[in-house]
Amino acid sequence: MGIRIAVAGASGYAGGELLRLIAGHPEFDLVAATAHSQAGQPVVAVHPQLAGLDLTLAVTDPAALADADLVFLALPHGESAALAATLPPTAKVVDLGADHRLADAAAWQRYYGGPHAGTWVYGLPELPGQRAAIAAADRVAATGCYAVATTLALAPLVAAGAVSPADVVVVAASGTSGAGRAAKSHLLGSEVMGDLSPYKVGAHQHVPEIKQASGATGLSFTPVLAPMPRGILATVTAVPATADVDPRAVLAEAYADEPFVHLLPEGRWPHTAATLGSNSCHLQATRDVDTGRVIVVSAIDNLGKGAAGQAVQCANLMLGLPETTGLSVWGIAP
Amino acid sequence: MGIRIAVAGASGYAGGELLRLIAGHPEFDLVAATAHSQAGQPVVAVHPQLAGLDLTLAVTDPAALADADLVFLALPHGESAALAATLPPTAKVVDLGADHRLADAAAWQRYYGGPHAGTWVYGLPELPGQRAAIAAADRVAATGCYAVATTLALAPLVAAGAVSPADVVVVAASGTSGAGRAAKSHLLGSEVMGDLSPYKVGAHQHVPEIKQASGATGLSFTPVLAPMPRGILATVTAVPATADVDPRAVLAEAYADEPFVHLLPEGRWPHTAATLGSNSCHLQATRDVDTGRVIVVSAIDNLGKGAAGQAVQCANLMLGLPETTGLSVWGIAP
Amino acid sequence: MGIRIAVAGASGYAGGELLRLIAGHPEFDLVAATAHSQAGQPVVAVHPQLAGLDLTLAVTDPAALADADLVFLALPHGESAALAATLPPTAKVVDLGADHRLADAAAWQRYYGGPHAGTWVYGLPELPGQRAAIAAADRVAATGCYAVATTLALAPLVAAGAVSPADVVVVAASGTSGAGRAAKSHLLGSEVMGDLSPYKVGAHQHVPEIKQASGATGLSFTPVLAPMPRGILATVTAVPATADVDPRAVLAEAYADEPFVHLLPEGRWPHTAATLGSNSCHLQATRDVDTGRVIVVSAIDNLGKGAAGQAVQCANLMLGLPETTGLSVWGIAP
Amino acid sequence: MGIRIAVAGASGYAGGELLRLIAGHPEFDLVAATAHSQAGQPVVAVHPQLAGLDLTLAVTDPAALADADLVFLALPHGESAALAATLPPTAKVVDLGADHRLADAAAWQRYYGGPHAGTWVYGLPELPGQRAAIAAADRVAATGCYAVATTLALAPLVAAGAVSPADVVVVAASGTSGAGRAAKSHLLGSEVMGDLSPYKVGAHQHVPEIKQASGATGLSFTPVLAPMPRGILATVTAVPATADVDPRAVLAEAYADEPFVHLLPEGRWPHTAATLGSNSCHLQATRDVDTGRVIVVSAIDNLGKGAAGQAVQCANLMLGLPETTGLSVWGIAP
Repeated sequence: MGIRIAVAGASGYAGGELLRLIAGHPEFDLVAATAHSQAGQPVVAVHPQLAGLDLTLAVTDPAALADADLVFLALPHGESAALAATLPPTAKVVDLGADHRLADAAAWQRYYGGPHAGTWVYGLPELPGQRAAIAAADRVAATGCYAVATTLALAPLVAAGAVSPADVVVVAASGTSGAGRAAKSHLLGSEVMGDLSPYKVGAHQHVPEIKQASGATGLSFTPVLAPMPRGILATVTAVPATADVDPRAVLAEAYADEPFVHLLPEGRWPHTAATLGSNSCHLQATRDVDTGRVIVVSAIDNLGKGAAGQAVQCANLMLGLPETTGLSVWGIAP
Repeated sequence: MGIRIAVAGASGYAGGELLRLIAGHPEFDLVAATAHSQAGQPVVAVHPQLAGLDLTLAVTDPAALADADLVFLALPHGESAALAATLPPTAKVVDLGADHRLADAAAWQRYYGGPHAGTWVYGLPELPGQRAAIAAADRVAATGCYAVATTLALAPLVAAGAVSPADVVVVAASGTSGAGRAAKSHLLGSEVMGDLSPYKVGAHQHVPEIKQASGATGLSFTPVLAPMPRGILATVTAVPATADVDPRAVLAEAYADEPFVHLLPEGRWPHTAATLGSNSCHLQATRDVDTGRVIVVSAIDNLGKGAAGQAVQCANLMLGLPETTGLSVWGIAP
Repeated sequence: MGIRIAVAGASGYAGGELLRLIAGHPEFDLVAATAHSQAGQPVVAVHPQLAGLDLTLAVTDPAALADADLVFLALPHGESAALAATLPPTAKVVDLGADHRLADAAAWQRYYGGPHAGTWVYGLPELPGQRAAIAAADRVAATGCYAVATTLALAPLVAAGAVSPADVVVVAASGTSGAGRAAKSHLLGSEVMGDLSPYKVGAHQHVPEIKQASGATGLSFTPVLAPMPRGILATVTAVPATADVDPRAVLAEAYADEPFVHLLPEGRWPHTAATLGSNSCHLQATRDVDTGRVIVVSAIDNLGKGAAGQAVQCANLMLGLPETTGLSVWGIAP
Repeated sequence: MGIRIAVAGASGYAGGELLRLIAGHPEFDLVAATAHSQAGQPVVAVHPQLAGLDLTLAVTDPAALADADLVFLALPHGESAALAATLPPTAKVVDLGADHRLADAAAWQRYYGGPHAGTWVYGLPELPGQRAAIAAADRVAATGCYAVATTLALAPLVAAGAVSPADVVVVAASGTSGAGRAAKSHLLGSEVMGDLSPYKVGAHQHVPEIKQASGATGLSFTPVLAPMPRGILATVTAVPATADVDPRAVLAEAYADEPFVHLLPEGRWPHTAATLGSNSCHLQATRDVDTGRVIVVSAIDNLGKGAAGQAVQCANLMLGLPETTGLSVWGIAP
């Protein structure tokens, strides 16, 4: 008998990827998956890629989740706190939503509105000290997808004093699954194929999370919707602190022992397709010849290291399992 | 120490998928991967999705492969026989190329030219009797991607006498990885995105294989290149033998115990994205209301059940392992 | 002062393409564009590709359209008849919806439900005798997109007695704009990219129209949604009437003088991207070597020759203008 | 009889788009189209979207072009000067290549190598004074695609002193046609679909052109290959000169009378699909709330305003025609 796992909010894209990872995880037993409007449907009606997985979506309520050793919450922003409060104290919880990520309640209210639900341990194991904190926690707030891609590129450089934290410029493009599964006309295939489309320019809600996690103090962040289902490519630029900064050396040292973060060999740049279906982050860095700016490019699967994979990685740590259990380092390409 | 596995022809798309499956297979040790023009390169330079896999591509020659318990051949058509002849008799071999699939040497010469290399056990375990034949074989010819998609849809209906084998009409669309990795201008992204393009209309080289495997005696087969990297959707139509033929019932019985072939619930139709990265085949069938024709639609990942996954499934059987070891039933979506 | 043109239902994809063609038409003045929920919005808010077109969407009602010499109706199926009845008798009308295409009221009710609105002149100028009928008509029912692609491939062969009309098998794949602009979750970019998905298998509502227009008496028609915004590729197969049928010769004769129908040189097959933005249909034909079946492949832009372009071509005829005015023979590629 | 036009280098993507625009231009007669390896082929064999255009590709040599009033050069970088020198002095020439764009010979040599061919009038009519210079010129160097997208966003802000020219950060993503039509394996559809891939990070050859045209003195420019055939989306950020800079106001004034440059209404952001097939540039601007940086986003069709459309616009000016003749303001969407 494995560890009993439940997923609340299993009908969305992150929820579907969680189900896939849990079903393939050697130590996990998927005991419940819940949804709102899709409750009562077989999982395969909602996630046809899981053909053969014999489970029916339950209604998202405390009873459906009471029996789990660990619960993943993949709910719309703002709904995690209420549900988490109903879970048994013995249950560990990983929240994939934004509710418990921010330490700054004012920032929460400015970007999300409504009362701040509180702050949980931040679920990015590759940050210094964070792996141990996650392992010791019962409640973990998994990272946002843009925050993972940007923070893994930037945080070691800020921490090392290699770049100024005050003038960070990031342009990050995401596949459409990052925009969710709700039917919206601007997300129709007819609209997004063949199209690059910026959104929330100048004021994206992920800015506070990225600043908090990366150490940036001034962040211009422009997200772009890209014509592909999955993947984030973040181009992170910052002003070097000194003329001789070597960003590759800093990143190489920071991630030397990380199983999921790969600084690519010189001359090779990350691209999103190489991370599809994996929990890996690919990085490369250089200095711009014209301005000297540090440029770091980061690629992840937004539903993998950017959501469900990251959440499973945190769960492994919380449960005392090897951190890589049930996760793939390798992407599926082409 | 696991079973020693080598891949000859590891630089192409099927080769890359093989490497991914082998690297994640709990019983396999990848001991050699060979290539032609890419020999000497690290695997990750050729397959960046395999970041962290520390292996260099060797030259495709007997010495590089001599040490393996089982060798996968993922070579261009016509090159397998010569290399296979150099392998130790104790090595098991799975050929992903077309060389050893056909029993009819004349058909080989008509479509491929050159001498016929001989006939190996055909690597489609779901055909009646074939699972045992594969398990007993040292040399297996894995199926072609179009043949898998079409045969799984059609063979049980022909075998049951439910449809006439004489007037089968198939239109099958494939993702671009089916066309290989060689640089050709008509396969450029600029050309294929936004485009559906038929090819080899009226005379495709896979017709003899499909007829041999499915039992069709007359086959009109039209392949179409589709704007996606992976996946085959085959629409298979045939004239029913009697007015009361129920194609779903025939398929349900044929595949009741198959781990990788899923007849979907009524009302749900296969689509390719649900099979991405998996070794599954999704099927659905109905009768056309206007003509009464049986229509079966089949979806696979052309590099999964259509190539590398199928080859690993055969290898598992040949090695006495559980057939599903190291293979995923579930696709990655969206 | 040009001919006064109005579009009812201008907020959808066919409506947007109509606006583009009308705005660029040298003899047309766009005097009104109407919509339902989008009424009151500037056209460019709904169709950002028309930046610089200064017009506001009016409410779809008789007053908004009363002033036009010709009205295009691009309404949901079932809504054209009521609106058409309110238009002045002096106004010419081209209906892009299905309401007035079918001669068989029973077929209408079987596939669409509700009362049949009556039959207008069928707007496919390339059918024998139809060009004159359109030119003489005040009310024209423009063709459905699948019907155009299939009929142009098939009708000359049936009319010439070259193929049997009784066993026609068609598989036709369409870009997603054919499924409309309403927000539906299965049409999200995340779902459709990388995916081929059949739908309404065995009983598609376009079967009666295709049979009526092409002369087929038995039609197995399978539509597939393809991962691209625009384009239809129809693979049309039929049993030849005699062993020496030459389908190319029949098509060459039928379309020798047609400006928009191009039988490609031997050896070149139609593909959808070559028709993007044009009013052209590309055709090629052969005989299957295994079964002798005639195979004709047809490519169009579903919003061009399949909808808005076809409607403008009909309008040109109805208004006594050169048939090609304001339409492009050439596609935009890549 | 119209103005006699020739295209040297008509087999590539920019060449094909030029042929389409010329064939539809009311004042142009296409008298010659030349190519290298494709010479002798009918145009439609190379550009199937131009079905019905009856012309054969000639060999690129002086004789083939001698008869033209205006010659477009769409040759590989470095080949324009030699051919241009052979043209009659009476022939006007528009070069779509990079050879004659740069005033700084050292910059040419650093990024392209080889001797600098000299400097022609820069073909961006929307720059102050440039329209008249182009109209008076016999030799014009049409702009590079990235330079158009970036310069139109940035130049008015630099000229007005609204932003510092010294710390401009640009991330610009392009469709694959910008990478040309030569068969390269990293540009295969299998590679680019579903993928975002940065390239030439830190040192792109377009930096000198963008600096020269826009007035930037320090430019960090990161190009990204995006999974779509056409389109450029440039995200241009710069430090405002004063706290109260209003970038929209500056752009609105600069482009008030421009037919092809559209500053979108507030709240609407440019996206590439809206410019497909057009000669338009869509712009929007804001200030980043976290850092105050000015962010301007620009969208063009890289083969339209970024190449062939721009070249025709320049040719219209050089020939005394209305600047918009034969060009579309409107894109084709979806």
